[in-house]
Amino acid sequence: MPLFVQKYGGTSVGTVDKIQHVATKILQAKRRNEDIVVVVSAMSGETDRLLTLARQIQTHPNPRELDVLLSTGEQVTIALLCMALEEKGCPASSYTGGQARILTDAAHTKARIVDIDTTRIRRDLEQGKVVVVAGFQGVNEEGDITTLGRGGSDTTAVALAAALKADECQIYTDVDGVYTTDPRVEPKARRLNRITFEEMLEMASLGSKVLQIRAVEFAGKYNVPLRVLSTFDEGKGTLITYEDETMEQALISGIAFNRDEAKLTVEGVPDRPGIAAKILGPIADANIEVDMIVQNVAEDATTDFTFTVHRNDYAKALDVLNQVKSELSARKVTGDDKIVKVSLVGVGMRSHAGIASKMFRSLADEGINIRMISTSEIKISVVLDEKYLELAVRTLHEAFELDQPLTA
Amino acid sequence: MPLFVQKYGGTSVGTVDKIQHVATKILQAKRRNEDIVVVVSAMSGETDRLLTLARQIQTHPNPRELDVLLSTGEQVTIALLCMALEEKGCPASSYTGGQARILTDAAHTKARIVDIDTTRIRRDLEQGKVVVVAGFQGVNEEGDITTLGRGGSDTTAVALAAALKADECQIYTDVDGVYTTDPRVEPKARRLNRITFEEMLEMASLGSKVLQIRAVEFAGKYNVPLRVLSTFDEGKGTLITYEDETMEQALISGIAFNRDEAKLTVEGVPDRPGIAAKILGPIADANIEVDMIVQNVAEDATTDFTFTVHRNDYAKALDVLNQVKSELSARKVTGDDKIVKVSLVGVGMRSHAGIASKMFRSLADEGINIRMISTSEIKISVVLDEKYLELAVRTLHEAFELDQPLTA
Repeated sequence: MPLFVQKYGGTSVGTVDKIQHVATKILQAKRRNEDIVVVVSAMSGETDRLLTLARQIQTHPNPRELDVLLSTGEQVTIALLCMALEEKGCPASSYTGGQARILTDAAHTKARIVDIDTTRIRRDLEQGKVVVVAGFQGVNEEGDITTLGRGGSDTTAVALAAALKADECQIYTDVDGVYTTDPRVEPKARRLNRITFEEMLEMASLGSKVLQIRAVEFAGKYNVPLRVLSTFDEGKGTLITYEDETMEQALISGIAFNRDEAKLTVEGVPDRPGIAAKILGPIADANIEVDMIVQNVAEDATTDFTFTVHRNDYAKALDVLNQVKSELSARKVTGDDKIVKVSLVGVGMRSHAGIASKMFRSLADEGINIRMISTSEIKISVVLDEKYLELAVRTLHEAFELDQPLTA
Repeated sequence: MPLFVQKYGGTSVGTVDKIQHVATKILQAKRRNEDIVVVVSAMSGETDRLLTLARQIQTHPNPRELDVLLSTGEQVTIALLCMALEEKGCPASSYTGGQARILTDAAHTKARIVDIDTTRIRRDLEQGKVVVVAGFQGVNEEGDITTLGRGGSDTTAVALAAALKADECQIYTDVDGVYTTDPRVEPKARRLNRITFEEMLEMASLGSKVLQIRAVEFAGKYNVPLRVLSTFDEGKGTLITYEDETMEQALISGIAFNRDEAKLTVEGVPDRPGIAAKILGPIADANIEVDMIVQNVAEDATTDFTFTVHRNDYAKALDVLNQVKSELSARKVTGDDKIVKVSLVGVGMRSHAGIASKMFRSLADEGINIRMISTSEIKISVVLDEKYLELAVRTLHEAFELDQPLTA
């Protein structure tokens, strides 16, 4: 019998009605003779309610106790979902993270899964039961409750699928798959039938919010086929797997973009080894995450050093640079917080030349000026003025014919 | 260092403010150099909120899943209370029932405590921490979450006090102790400084709602001194212990009463062995609990058999008896649902004659007719017409001088 791990997020289980709907979907899978392990999040709004209680008591709640508190959110959902399944005549058993023996390290509020003992889950499956596991949580070696941090329920689902050697890990959400780009920007955006782990990682890190990066990494590492699909609509969704040599591969899978960028440039710094560390050290010390980094070639023994940060960190980053400017013997610090990043992603570009030049030419034809460029093996990112975002996405979507279904 | 187990009920931890108040009280105890283990209930209203969710899904929620659901209520409280303690600079650690290794049998929603492994709690206490344990819950041998049923948090507190050999188990509540009778009926009612386990059991079973019977039984069995005191007022409360031979013992400790009684009489049944079972068997089969039972002496080979039930069960009980009347060869079935029970309780009556006659005389002097009488070693109960309840309680309170403090 095929085994599937299904994960339902907070909006999918946000009300009693929605929980009953999820139970119906699980029942349909059982009728297709599938073994089902379900991972659920807290009902939407519940985690915020608990956080508000905690913050009324401590501005920075004690991490161990915060995990004890927040983990109750998923515990409520697993019980209610099992009741809904039982009510429909489907035997089910719930497990908290601790009961499912999801062993993590001791890093409260951002723990990592170390091991899962699936003995009890397998026994229940053999008895024909649906197993419902609380996402986002585990226990450390001491038996203390831990939580996995943002997107933790996706990680729980993938880890369980890996431990159980499931046929697929299905992430049910409020969109029906991964798209070539955001349909709100390009209405011709098309749902992808499949995408590789590497592409999905690039898409996720570039602002596509469908899946959490950690879950995709985990799935890639353990080769767990991931499928993103809708809780509320029918459809096959998008399958995320390793590249399959036998099938025709799209040149470009999608266009990701990120609106909330800002760039900073330190102009005229001496072109000496160690200068990048001297600039980025104080930035890291100020807890600012850096995204793209570009250093131009040196002219007359000085160079310009540019990097991008989240727009919220722009003012702070500018402050830091101005403080260290003289120490760096830099000429000037400049910046711009009205920029965006647009990226082409596709494993196909590995074996096809001319993608970058086609991209730059298409943008130039529309009069869009490129401010920065950065590339990886399967991605080309450009930084543009904010006002060009929508035009650039639509131009590239058309240029690379992303609205055309693959004829594989 | 003396060790105290403190238990706070739902109304004592009903809001963030109240939780902070409880933290302050615990801190005061720590400053008196006491080791403190705290047991808490769910915030008031939380258990009802969860039950409502469950019943929207299942009229009779699956018991295993109901326990998973309801146990989150106390889990929220332990985390918030530990945060409040930490915020006041007092190190604290929370434990769910499972983490505190409160092992129970497998009877979901009404489990009984089998064993407690106190290793981790003792280690935390040695490190100077306050230990906060979720009341009302445990785990069975399989690791499934169980709950202890009504009043379960009191039972958790007493069981922990017994396992830790605590000096005292302190039940904090919204009244400041055990009274000679309900102050709403007799304003002269006086708080008792002490009362014996046996008296407390009688008081509780007779309608005094301060403590749950199971917790008192447990405390008596393991000889754990229990103290009832107020969360919101200062004061020593009422200590519940075994009778102390060296101290002067009050003749009567208190007057308990129960408004919600009804009585039924089967008249003229043949006075033969087994007749009581024939009457009460069908009553038990109908799930009706019987309280007092009185059988008068036989006249002309027949007898009258009378018993009391909860007023809610009156109509059902009357139905049952009318159905079996002919089988019993009974003459008539009569009943009255406008009666109350008033009881004198006191270990002193063991060694003092004349208590009953004084009680009956006092009532007769006020023109109160006694409808039934039942006695135990430390209790005399009478059934009266409902309208006499307040008069009877005040009359007996004065006759036995319960408003006078003991001059021990």
